[in-house]
Amino acid sequence: MRRAVRLPARTAARTFGTSRALRSASASSRSFYADEPPAPVLATASLPGPESKRHIEDLKSTFETRSLNMMVDYTRSAGNYIADPDGNMLLDVYAQIASIPVGYNNPALKRAAASPEMIDAIINRPALGNFPSHTWASILRSGILRAAPRGLDNVFTAMAGSDANELAYKAAFMYRRQQERGGRDVDFTPDEVESAMRNESPGSPQLSILSFKNGFHGRLFGSLSTTRSKPIHKLDIPAFDWPQATFPQCRYPLDEHAEENARAEKASLDEVDHLISNWRVPVAAVIVEPIQSEGGDNHASADFFRKLRALTRKRNVLLIVDEVQTGVGATGRFWAHDHWELDDAPDMVTFSKKAQTGGYYFRSRDLLPNKPYRQFNTWMGDPAKALLFRAIVDEVERLDLVANTARVGDYLYRRIEELAARHPDHFRNLRGKDRGTFIAFDSPKRDAFLVKAKAFGINIGGSGASAVRLRPMLTFQEHHADILVDALDKVAKSL
Amino acid sequence: MRRAVRLPARTAARTFGTSRALRSASASSRSFYADEPPAPVLATASLPGPESKRHIEDLKSTFETRSLNMMVDYTRSAGNYIADPDGNMLLDVYAQIASIPVGYNNPALKRAAASPEMIDAIINRPALGNFPSHTWASILRSGILRAAPRGLDNVFTAMAGSDANELAYKAAFMYRRQQERGGRDVDFTPDEVESAMRNESPGSPQLSILSFKNGFHGRLFGSLSTTRSKPIHKLDIPAFDWPQATFPQCRYPLDEHAEENARAEKASLDEVDHLISNWRVPVAAVIVEPIQSEGGDNHASADFFRKLRALTRKRNVLLIVDEVQTGVGATGRFWAHDHWELDDAPDMVTFSKKAQTGGYYFRSRDLLPNKPYRQFNTWMGDPAKALLFRAIVDEVERLDLVANTARVGDYLYRRIEELAARHPDHFRNLRGKDRGTFIAFDSPKRDAFLVKAKAFGINIGGSGASAVRLRPMLTFQEHHADILVDALDKVAKSL
Repeated sequence: MRRAVRLPARTAARTFGTSRALRSASASSRSFYADEPPAPVLATASLPGPESKRHIEDLKSTFETRSLNMMVDYTRSAGNYIADPDGNMLLDVYAQIASIPVGYNNPALKRAAASPEMIDAIINRPALGNFPSHTWASILRSGILRAAPRGLDNVFTAMAGSDANELAYKAAFMYRRQQERGGRDVDFTPDEVESAMRNESPGSPQLSILSFKNGFHGRLFGSLSTTRSKPIHKLDIPAFDWPQATFPQCRYPLDEHAEENARAEKASLDEVDHLISNWRVPVAAVIVEPIQSEGGDNHASADFFRKLRALTRKRNVLLIVDEVQTGVGATGRFWAHDHWELDDAPDMVTFSKKAQTGGYYFRSRDLLPNKPYRQFNTWMGDPAKALLFRAIVDEVERLDLVANTARVGDYLYRRIEELAARHPDHFRNLRGKDRGTFIAFDSPKRDAFLVKAKAFGINIGGSGASAVRLRPMLTFQEHHADILVDALDKVAKSL
Repeated sequence: MRRAVRLPARTAARTFGTSRALRSASASSRSFYADEPPAPVLATASLPGPESKRHIEDLKSTFETRSLNMMVDYTRSAGNYIADPDGNMLLDVYAQIASIPVGYNNPALKRAAASPEMIDAIINRPALGNFPSHTWASILRSGILRAAPRGLDNVFTAMAGSDANELAYKAAFMYRRQQERGGRDVDFTPDEVESAMRNESPGSPQLSILSFKNGFHGRLFGSLSTTRSKPIHKLDIPAFDWPQATFPQCRYPLDEHAEENARAEKASLDEVDHLISNWRVPVAAVIVEPIQSEGGDNHASADFFRKLRALTRKRNVLLIVDEVQTGVGATGRFWAHDHWELDDAPDMVTFSKKAQTGGYYFRSRDLLPNKPYRQFNTWMGDPAKALLFRAIVDEVERLDLVANTARVGDYLYRRIEELAARHPDHFRNLRGKDRGTFIAFDSPKRDAFLVKAKAFGINIGGSGASAVRLRPMLTFQEHHADILVDALDKVAKSL
């Protein structure tokens, strides 16, 4: 099934991990896709190779390259493997910052992308609020809404994570003011109408969104006001005077520190409660990630989130769950908050990244503003991306990929536990148990760790101050896990 | 060349405007595209027809339909004509809120959308700041950067108009603080680093963007703080305490009221100057539309904009020109601000809509923040949409469409002048002379006017309080203008 990787004639390939490629105990060691190489391919003596360097130099004059990690040849990338212009192919467990769901050049997505429906959507992009296609309802139902979290039957579509969150905030603020005003049918006062045009209250009210320290919710002005990940994300940008609560400072593994973690979680909930009651700008909603993903893969227990839901309900503020990075299958459930088994669904759940489109699911039509054109913009999403998400959902179902991440995640977690036992210094605070392949650990030499991994054939990312975060695609399997663990072992030995 | 429009068997078609289809004096009366109908087709006795109604009803439970204008069958739409599921085909001079550049189902775009390069870009969407494709530099140069305004050789790509503007604001704020700090090489203070995480100054500084009354710059939190179009856009959404200046209150035609308009323009510039010196939150940049498009098609003279450029230069604030709606050829120049013939280019020009992608062009690399990851997000644009824009630029060149809008715009303006002479009540304040097809007029019965136009085969939009705005595609020709004017005449007579 597998074909050899085409290499530049001038370089000899070094491959890694082949000796262990068959080690996995699972039945699912055959790749989902035929054209993946059996193992990483290193075609140049060092990375980046000469062709990559040439392309990087060329791009410098036209685009931001200071954050460049790797120059990529997407046409030659395949499945879980990312290729560069020199013919190197790395096992990719970073996956475009967790945004590639089902592998590079996935044949099913290729068919969807080449379909007449897709071409139509690309070249005739509608202003969805005014001129929707007669096919839009069916595209939504068979795709975005088919994937809707339990209890959230409605969606407002957006383009990416930042605007998805900001549109959810807008919905929260409009809902809150509507409540304060006495219901959907109560009209705006002349004072509101007039002051809104001056950006002043009461028309532009003093209301806030509460977020958690180390949380990440995007980088536009409203979303950035809730983002508390790193100074470099926030410096020099004006922000709203919104409150932040401490995210539970848990120890890992969570279940082995249940008692002290429960204390940390209670302290966090108390702080949320206190801020809702006392912050100088009234709180309309709380936003939280199921796992703080940019902030260093910080976890809390399902119990914490259930109590947060109860608290927001009691305090009459909305709960927005940001599943931009955690959503679409990687945690062993389609949505990470499914792990909480809530009786009372969140009010809104935002999504993007692996969905390729974005938006917020919402629970009740009460969260629709009382008049049209209040939640509105020219495009309001993109049917082309919605079609792509539908194809992704189809592929997740066809290959049972949520079960795959759950099973492979368990396997991978156990194998990294073994590694951590051997190299306790390089694999600290292993976390993500029972959260599929959404696994992370801390490394004191994190940045060197990430660079070194490339030399052993792995593309891997960091987050927070010292975390190495694993964000493989949903098509990551046991034999990929073996290759990864083998390489991580070599990285640790080499540091 | 033209084929008959396929109609449902059960309805007889009424067509409009055929008698005048050949009236135009110009040589360019042949359609650019073979499959356009010769005139609007009305297949149902009233609009929406039964099929449309059924689809609208169906969509209601899954999406916002209160702002729905028309249910569309995009597959059957062609060139300048928009089709509905009942077989009606209207001449579309609204064009998805000014965002369709070269006609529905444009064959050249169809080829671009079906190309292997496009399919690759769709299914392998990169995180451009970290993992750009080795083809990205060439895609930028042959597309987005080929279309760059004079003097602005750099671009930062985005997804739509709102985030394009917000990213430009972020660049302006970072630039301003860098100046205040004493240069690119001066590092942040510990106090800045720490306070930014609390959304407090000095890390999150008190700085503002100055915009104009009736301006529209988007609907996310930063962009909405500069939008001053309508209360319904702003009510209940927290906003920054940013200043607004009066946009010149000009009379039309501009050249016939030059003297009093010059006074209005001077008053506006004086107010801008005053606000820059005195507003309680220091101004980092001024943003302005070449024609206030959502706010009612408000024009000012090239002289006004030249003086605004000089004033911002003198006061050391940046000038951002928002070309989201005016850009990409409709005004008879590729960028509307080309009409100003500036010696000193704007600092940034933002774009989206007809470009299908978005972003800001910028003048100097000094506007790049001093460190990576300050202006950054997961996708940072979308190569698929950049490829589409490239195909649009190719088509604009191939068909010389900027010259087309200039020529057809002159013709259309003259013909509406004639109409206005006959129906002075329904065509007031005609404006957009020498601005291509970017033409508008006021109608005291505007909303009825727009509805009525559909009955005569025209899809047309409004803006501001009483404006009818024409936003035909770049492929709108003299024979379309004849059909449009004919219908407008009938609308006026029927009101």
